[in-house]
Amino acid sequence: MPLKYSSNLLVVQTEIRIRFSEVDSMGVVWHGNYLKYFEDGREAFGRKHGLGYLDFFNNNILTPLVSIECNYKLPLIYGDAAIIYTKYIDCEAAKLLFEYKILKKDTNETIVTAKSTQVFLNSNRELMLTFPDFFIEWKRKMGIIRVC
Amino acid sequence: MPLKYSSNLLVVQTEIRIRFSEVDSMGVVWHGNYLKYFEDGREAFGRKHGLGYLDFFNNNILTPLVSIECNYKLPLIYGDAAIIYTKYIDCEAAKLLFEYKILKKDTNETIVTAKSTQVFLNSNRELMLTFPDFFIEWKRKMGIIRVC
Amino acid sequence: MPLKYSSNLLVVQTEIRIRFSEVDSMGVVWHGNYLKYFEDGREAFGRKHGLGYLDFFNNNILTPLVSIECNYKLPLIYGDAAIIYTKYIDCEAAKLLFEYKILKKDTNETIVTAKSTQVFLNSNRELMLTFPDFFIEWKRKMGIIRVC
Amino acid sequence: MPLKYSSNLLVVQTEIRIRFSEVDSMGVVWHGNYLKYFEDGREAFGRKHGLGYLDFFNNNILTPLVSIECNYKLPLIYGDAAIIYTKYIDCEAAKLLFEYKILKKDTNETIVTAKSTQVFLNSNRELMLTFPDFFIEWKRKMGIIRVC
Repeated sequence: MPLKYSSNLLVVQTEIRIRFSEVDSMGVVWHGNYLKYFEDGREAFGRKHGLGYLDFFNNNILTPLVSIECNYKLPLIYGDAAIIYTKYIDCEAAKLLFEYKILKKDTNETIVTAKSTQVFLNSNRELMLTFPDFFIEWKRKMGIIRVC
Repeated sequence: MPLKYSSNLLVVQTEIRIRFSEVDSMGVVWHGNYLKYFEDGREAFGRKHGLGYLDFFNNNILTPLVSIECNYKLPLIYGDAAIIYTKYIDCEAAKLLFEYKILKKDTNETIVTAKSTQVFLNSNRELMLTFPDFFIEWKRKMGIIRVC
Repeated sequence: MPLKYSSNLLVVQTEIRIRFSEVDSMGVVWHGNYLKYFEDGREAFGRKHGLGYLDFFNNNILTPLVSIECNYKLPLIYGDAAIIYTKYIDCEAAKLLFEYKILKKDTNETIVTAKSTQVFLNSNRELMLTFPDFFIEWKRKMGIIRVC
Repeated sequence: MPLKYSSNLLVVQTEIRIRFSEVDSMGVVWHGNYLKYFEDGREAFGRKHGLGYLDFFNNNILTPLVSIECNYKLPLIYGDAAIIYTKYIDCEAAKLLFEYKILKKDTNETIVTAKSTQVFLNSNRELMLTFPDFFIEWKRKMGIIRVC
């Protein structure tokens, strides 16, 4: 009996404030620091929806990133407040996809967009080719999977 | 008189050793730290070929990243030695492209591949739609531009 | 007419949550990351009391750290919530002193204590041997200075 | 038969070059980054003298920092080359002490001095009140311990 996936999208918002130590000598956030913000976003998503590193970890599953792609539109400077939008993208392959958009809080301008792909490793650190049971259960709970 | 660009490629190698502070709680280099290594690679390229941040800076030009794309193949752990290959990719648009490959030193395995795009901002921090003179001069010196 | 300083203390609390990227391969916050948390504390103090980097910056004054001293008592791990207490310590010399204490939120255990010293540099980046006017004004406003 | 400790000092030199991502918006190395450089120094010491994290780790011993103290004298900027001097300081208590001095390479000016203290934790992460055997053996090999 085949599984079907809805086009369901889940988004979590997180507010950050730019730290002095995150700004480079051009006076703007150093581009590499955005990967921390995306991780903040994924963590906020995980805390809200029971899909954090620790939830995976407690199921003996690791979820390393295998790719990330960022497009930088406008800079942020020290003291700026910004909102990270982290969107879960459902996928039929045994992968975990998120899309990110960071907006400057006071102007609503788009600062960065990005997209990351994670895979599942089992307790022997081997690549899993199918979804872990824990994750299928999570999808069901979230209404993402609908059995035909 | 039109300019032509050769398919000339320029590659610089840089050796790094993984720091304790760069490794995460899974015991592997945190994925965001690779952006520092790529920057190390660009800097090494710049120092060798007269195309560093300071060379641009002294010409009143900034070169912020507008996109980066990384593909993670295998992890590095604390103490590993690795080689960053940073390759200049010539381009007809007013952009600066680099491709990166990081290999584990002792096994020659590919750890990460990546590609970045930078643009040119003038002294008013406005996007330049054509190459700065300084950069055209650099291309000429490097034998990348050939006048017909 | 000599100035006198009260022993007035000012404390600001800031809550942080430990990021995955801040934890090292022993599973605890890497010791160097606490300096970011202290800076978070100073910034929160500055935002609350009009004494942030930007307030100094707008008065053409830089306040680089000249010393820091940290004592680590207990570790924090990924996902922990903690409270930074940042205490302004008044001082007769032309210096800016803060003391920090970080407590684990749920147990109230002391994690780290620390103390930092900053100096004032004028617009030529020269050491100022007396307090900048702006800062004397701030002390007055805060009731720290009492004229005899 | 009591052990005696000589006043033997051991120093290792490490060269670093300041990365763009290590410089803050004042154009100088962000003060917290020096803790990475000190760790670079300890690691270089460890690699040279068989006293690295992995040597401890392989003996089931962890050596967390319990205190660090830094005094900042002069700034370093992007591209500067500097030398870290890492000095082992022998001590009768069950601690591991290092002193650090960072000099700017081309001028020999002192940039920062610092000192760190580490303790020994056994495989249960309990504080060890006496030196681990492995470390006594190391001291003997280094000629630091002299049996009367």
